[in-house]
Amino acid sequence: WTHTILTYSDTDNPWTVLQDTLSRYTFQGDSLWVEKRLLPLERAEHLQYLFGQKTLVDAEPALMKLRTIKSEEEITVLRKAAQLADLGVQIGVEAIAEGRKEIDILAKIEYELTLKGITEMAFQTTVISGANSADPHGKPGNKAIEHGDLVLFDLGVVLDGYCSDITRTVAYGDLSDSLRKVYDTVLEAQLGAISLCKPGTELGALDRKARSIITEAGYGEWFPHRLGHGLGTDVHELPSINETNQDKLQAGMTFTIEPGIYLPNKGGVRIEDDILITEDGHELLTSYPKELQIIK
Amino acid sequence: WTHTILTYSDTDNPWTVLQDTLSRYTFQGDSLWVEKRLLPLERAEHLQYLFGQKTLVDAEPALMKLRTIKSEEEITVLRKAAQLADLGVQIGVEAIAEGRKEIDILAKIEYELTLKGITEMAFQTTVISGANSADPHGKPGNKAIEHGDLVLFDLGVVLDGYCSDITRTVAYGDLSDSLRKVYDTVLEAQLGAISLCKPGTELGALDRKARSIITEAGYGEWFPHRLGHGLGTDVHELPSINETNQDKLQAGMTFTIEPGIYLPNKGGVRIEDDILITEDGHELLTSYPKELQIIK
Ligand SMILES: [Mn+2]
Ligand SMILES: [Mn+2]
Repeated sequence: WTHTILTYSDTDNPWTVLQDTLSRYTFQGDSLWVEKRLLPLERAEHLQYLFGQKTLVDAEPALMKLRTIKSEEEITVLRKAAQLADLGVQIGVEAIAEGRKEIDILAKIEYELTLKGITEMAFQTTVISGANSADPHGKPGNKAIEHGDLVLFDLGVVLDGYCSDITRTVAYGDLSDSLRKVYDTVLEAQLGAISLCKPGTELGALDRKARSIITEAGYGEWFPHRLGHGLGTDVHELPSINETNQDKLQAGMTFTIEPGIYLPNKGGVRIEDDILITEDGHELLTSYPKELQIIK
Repeated sequence: WTHTILTYSDTDNPWTVLQDTLSRYTFQGDSLWVEKRLLPLERAEHLQYLFGQKTLVDAEPALMKLRTIKSEEEITVLRKAAQLADLGVQIGVEAIAEGRKEIDILAKIEYELTLKGITEMAFQTTVISGANSADPHGKPGNKAIEHGDLVLFDLGVVLDGYCSDITRTVAYGDLSDSLRKVYDTVLEAQLGAISLCKPGTELGALDRKARSIITEAGYGEWFPHRLGHGLGTDVHELPSINETNQDKLQAGMTFTIEPGIYLPNKGGVRIEDDILITEDGHELLTSYPKELQIIK
């Protein structure tokens, strides 16, 4: 930390502690910078009461911009977090068996990751199968894995405050030709977007590349979300990888690329990697295989 | 739900949706009730911009008061959530073995609860042992269980939006006489406070009862926290069970009673139950045994 952190005990009034400390400094400016997306109104009103003359200014745009480019230390942690996400998928794929429930597979993944020291997942782990996988926000339940199902894993860990986020989809038993075509299309879209990842590329171009491949294959209406999102201490942060983002990729950005196609009542496929932009291209932080796996 | 819930899609502006809907009603008052502890300043400013004439008033004190008395439906869920917390402790106690790590036992508890359909814990599960148990906010780690350790479990589940919260402490191998006296004192303090639980008792009296038993036994300085807290959709809500609370117990209140004694470098004991105040007394929602268990 390069700044002062104030602490207080159960019996202290934190506002008094803050005011006492700040009164020891001289401030030139007439604004207080706060994170308006995070600061509750109750606390904002306390601050405004204590510093009646000053204006509360939103620090978040500046902070978010700073957070968008990762340092070497941050990248080292993100790389390890991504490897643990790979491991989570591997555990899940190995746990697939006829009649095994989605929730059982989820429990097994989180159990093994906890044994590796992970005490927090980046978001609620998703293991959904068959028709359930066709819901981009589907929740794992008591559905058992059946022959012909797609099984979609979406998970990530928090490691030393940094998040990972991976999605893989595998097939159990045999796969219908129509779902195989969906898989091939998603993978082609994902690889197409990744191939553009280097400093200087417009962010929106990644989304448009993946979207055009999916649309040309006839699935445009079944890809309802943006291509990806920045990844750091929040699992969703800047940059946003959407069609209209005209910002340019820069070395040190980390984000996901996760196209998906969801055929109602049939099944969904999403393939997601965590990507780091390097000086001359990119590095895939997640590396679990992406060739279609058919579990027998 | 007895009120209207507005929804919006990814491409909607939620503020516009809100304004459009509200413009269809006529409001007599000139205030908007919001939860100031939860509403971020960014959203508060949006609201204030859209409804410039109205004052934002804090709805939380009124909501918290309403939430303090639980309905029969709520109690049914809280009872089940508490039983799952009992089960969590049971799984943990059965998993204790020489050399087993705290984090392994935690993983086992959460794994088994996930198989029961629990996808969210009420707070980070605690399994701490030996000297670690002497820290009221201790975190589980790679420490292995050793002969002579106290092992403290603090955990709860979220079931249908309602929380449970239980603490039990057991001994592994043999227990020193001094830690046995600590255990007996905490249990006596907990039972003493519970014996006062009926409508009309002053809340502070519960804390003072437990605190006086602990103080008379010579451990007053090692019981640094309040006796308990309300329990509902939040794991910490009203009422606060502390020395100075002069409110009276009422039927339908649910809260924890959790005295503790923490001897630095030696070990800590905390015993916590979830209590419901009934018309003529109380009901213990958690029921895992409290007699000292010495695991061999
Ligand atoms: Mn993602
Ligand atoms: Mn508690």
